[in-house]
Amino acid sequence: MTYAPVADVLAGKYGVDDTVTIKGWVRTRRDSKAGLSFINVHDGSCFDPIQVVAMNSLANYEDITKLTTSCSVSVVGTVKASQGQGQALEIEAQSVEVLGWVENPDTYPMAAKRHSIEYLREHAHLRPRTNIIGAVTRIRNCLSQAVHRFFHEQGYFWISTPILTASDTEGAGEMFRVSTLDMMNIPRDDKGLVDYKEDFFGKETFLTVSGQLNVETYCAAMSKVYTFGPTFRAENSNTSRHLAEFWMIEPEVAFADLATVAQLAEDLLKYVFKAVLEERPDDMAFFAQRVNKEAITRLESVVNSEFVRMDYTDAIDILQKSGKKFEFPVEWGVDLSSEHERYLAEEHVGAPIIMQNYPKDIKAFYMRINDDNKTVAAMDVLAPGIGEIIGGSQREERLDVFDRRLAEMDLSQEDYAWYRDLRRYGTVPHAGFGLGFERLVAYVTGMQNVRDVIPFPRTPGNAQY
Amino acid sequence: MTYAPVADVLAGKYGVDDTVTIKGWVRTRRDSKAGLSFINVHDGSCFDPIQVVAMNSLANYEDITKLTTSCSVSVVGTVKASQGQGQALEIEAQSVEVLGWVENPDTYPMAAKRHSIEYLREHAHLRPRTNIIGAVTRIRNCLSQAVHRFFHEQGYFWISTPILTASDTEGAGEMFRVSTLDMMNIPRDDKGLVDYKEDFFGKETFLTVSGQLNVETYCAAMSKVYTFGPTFRAENSNTSRHLAEFWMIEPEVAFADLATVAQLAEDLLKYVFKAVLEERPDDMAFFAQRVNKEAITRLESVVNSEFVRMDYTDAIDILQKSGKKFEFPVEWGVDLSSEHERYLAEEHVGAPIIMQNYPKDIKAFYMRINDDNKTVAAMDVLAPGIGEIIGGSQREERLDVFDRRLAEMDLSQEDYAWYRDLRRYGTVPHAGFGLGFERLVAYVTGMQNVRDVIPFPRTPGNAQY
Repeated sequence: MTYAPVADVLAGKYGVDDTVTIKGWVRTRRDSKAGLSFINVHDGSCFDPIQVVAMNSLANYEDITKLTTSCSVSVVGTVKASQGQGQALEIEAQSVEVLGWVENPDTYPMAAKRHSIEYLREHAHLRPRTNIIGAVTRIRNCLSQAVHRFFHEQGYFWISTPILTASDTEGAGEMFRVSTLDMMNIPRDDKGLVDYKEDFFGKETFLTVSGQLNVETYCAAMSKVYTFGPTFRAENSNTSRHLAEFWMIEPEVAFADLATVAQLAEDLLKYVFKAVLEERPDDMAFFAQRVNKEAITRLESVVNSEFVRMDYTDAIDILQKSGKKFEFPVEWGVDLSSEHERYLAEEHVGAPIIMQNYPKDIKAFYMRINDDNKTVAAMDVLAPGIGEIIGGSQREERLDVFDRRLAEMDLSQEDYAWYRDLRRYGTVPHAGFGLGFERLVAYVTGMQNVRDVIPFPRTPGNAQY
Repeated sequence: MTYAPVADVLAGKYGVDDTVTIKGWVRTRRDSKAGLSFINVHDGSCFDPIQVVAMNSLANYEDITKLTTSCSVSVVGTVKASQGQGQALEIEAQSVEVLGWVENPDTYPMAAKRHSIEYLREHAHLRPRTNIIGAVTRIRNCLSQAVHRFFHEQGYFWISTPILTASDTEGAGEMFRVSTLDMMNIPRDDKGLVDYKEDFFGKETFLTVSGQLNVETYCAAMSKVYTFGPTFRAENSNTSRHLAEFWMIEPEVAFADLATVAQLAEDLLKYVFKAVLEERPDDMAFFAQRVNKEAITRLESVVNSEFVRMDYTDAIDILQKSGKKFEFPVEWGVDLSSEHERYLAEEHVGAPIIMQNYPKDIKAFYMRINDDNKTVAAMDVLAPGIGEIIGGSQREERLDVFDRRLAEMDLSQEDYAWYRDLRRYGTVPHAGFGLGFERLVAYVTGMQNVRDVIPFPRTPGNAQY
């Protein structure tokens, strides 16, 4: 038996006086003295519920007047122009079948009232039923679809880099160990150390912190590639911007320099923001009204702006001459902190900035050394209202320079053997960046905490469900 | 500086006599006595390399005659109709710049000759440079894009279910433990057991084996959802069909019964097969020629077939009456083995089968009990040439029946508290299935081993790179 998504009915895909079936959950019910009930029914397909008008002539009208929030119903009815405010169309019910009641509505955790965002987080299995998390879910889906579409249209291949890795080469953060060893009886080798030869993979194994190094191997054959998968940090960070498990998008482009991927980053952000503005005006209107009044205007402003390219060295100069008092002092060589980034993007420029060419000493071993031998071809995209949203770089493709850098940083060539092979065999200039997906969703929706834009957030002490 | 993908040049997107720049890697080089070199250059954008004709009048012609497989080059040249066989267009070089040489071509692991598939697996960082793994990579990308597109077009939302889980409710297979405890100094509680309160999440935590239970929470609010993410099994299975880390697609549909998701499975497979046939004829021609001569015809046959619905009980009858001698005996109540499934799909029916209504004792606790109280509304999709490719079921949405089943199976209500909540609050009939992405890619390409259709396969003893 087919039924119509609420989104289709509200969008006028059925004519007035057509008979339709809809299925969903009660958001609210209001009885009129005139002997009829107004039931708002949502099914997740769009922000708005549809109003169902049920007359007391229906055989099970008494049941209908007992419907509470989240009862599930199947409604057959006629599409009508709505008399009420706030919607153009409604459904005049021919029948309302109750599919599932709510056990004890008085204690139902998601009753139709305002709940704090922290309360919702503690009921992560029920919170998608709320307006706000439903809207986040549709935006998150819209963004992920747009990301895949953007890369596909431009000839990129999606590469699933490994989640489990025994590679010693990452170093982007604290890692989780993955093991099947018996924790009550850890095998030891003859030196008394843990004998990982006995473990599932025969080596100490971790969850990946980034797919970049792996995806470079595919870049060196397929030219244009990207990852979109989960990454992990075992950092004890209880902030609104950190998750132990989060999704990351990492394009990697052959025959590309920093300018190429700076443009790619700008194009990608504009593309996905435009997709959200075009495809989800309903949810964005909600976020603008209830979460951040600039939610829509700031996306529009990014879409219509030219991202400003700025050198780190010039940024230091601007900050020093700003006359502003910063918590963290500014001098050439320091990493920019959030206050600096936001001053530059929000006050000084008033548009997204692509900050480029950072001091090599504060950046990773794989970034390409510039001719000044002091800076590397690294970039961060700083967006007004959030700060850093993308970090990337051109990669060091010159074997001799790379080896010198390894030595400088006291890293062994052996540990990087397969990564060095890419520089030994047909090396090419290449560059890429990383975009944390939850930070992107938080930026778009205006949600303050990344824990509220991923279905089941993992943070220190929390891995329920 | 922009350049043209080889795919675009070969597809005739540039006119004859246009000047183009291409960038890529040498596949082969052949010198002619007439004083010119033919260089086949690939860039991953399509199966075929493009032939570059370099005359000895080029200033660096001597270098050009030293080019070997996988040297990287940037070529500026004129598009010409090709004189040679096998391609319609070629490039007459105005310049050939060598970007990267191959260090010691004699020992280069990916020299242009036939390598065994096992040898390639041991060089997973270089194997994307081969014809076969390049083709697999494009097909894999094509399939993943088609999966997202299919669901998006039908109003499904992508849900990223958690990779890390402290839930005790899975039981679909052996799990990997994820921990940050110091393995040399495991904390113990006062009973002498491992004190997981000290661990990162404050509880014993594992890698997920399936997103299904989690995604049901979103299904109960958004109606149509799907997962597409990595899942894990710590099983010591060294077979051609098992990986410790693999990607899974799991749609979950509200207001749906088994017949609905059986149709969804059929539609999905046909949609993605059609996408591959339309979008990647080049790679599919290669697989048909070199890997499995039925690679194309069997996809076409699935696309054009009607999947046959068959009850498990009828299948047992057919197998018993077949007169075939099976290794594993057939009687009502046993799980079908691969030989049974393949006999039914390949010999008896000659088309994909959707096998339905299995004995409840061989199926999971969450599957919906049929009225006979002996079978559950479960299904497997069996495809000729591979056997089971999809497994799914209608889920038990009736709280009383679910609780009886938990009791029967000696499972505690408390462990399933949040899953039970979905049945306590506005429960709806719903159903879904799981499709292992690597098995899908293996089926489409004809590759024998799932290790060769994922970039970096993880199996017992193997987690390199």
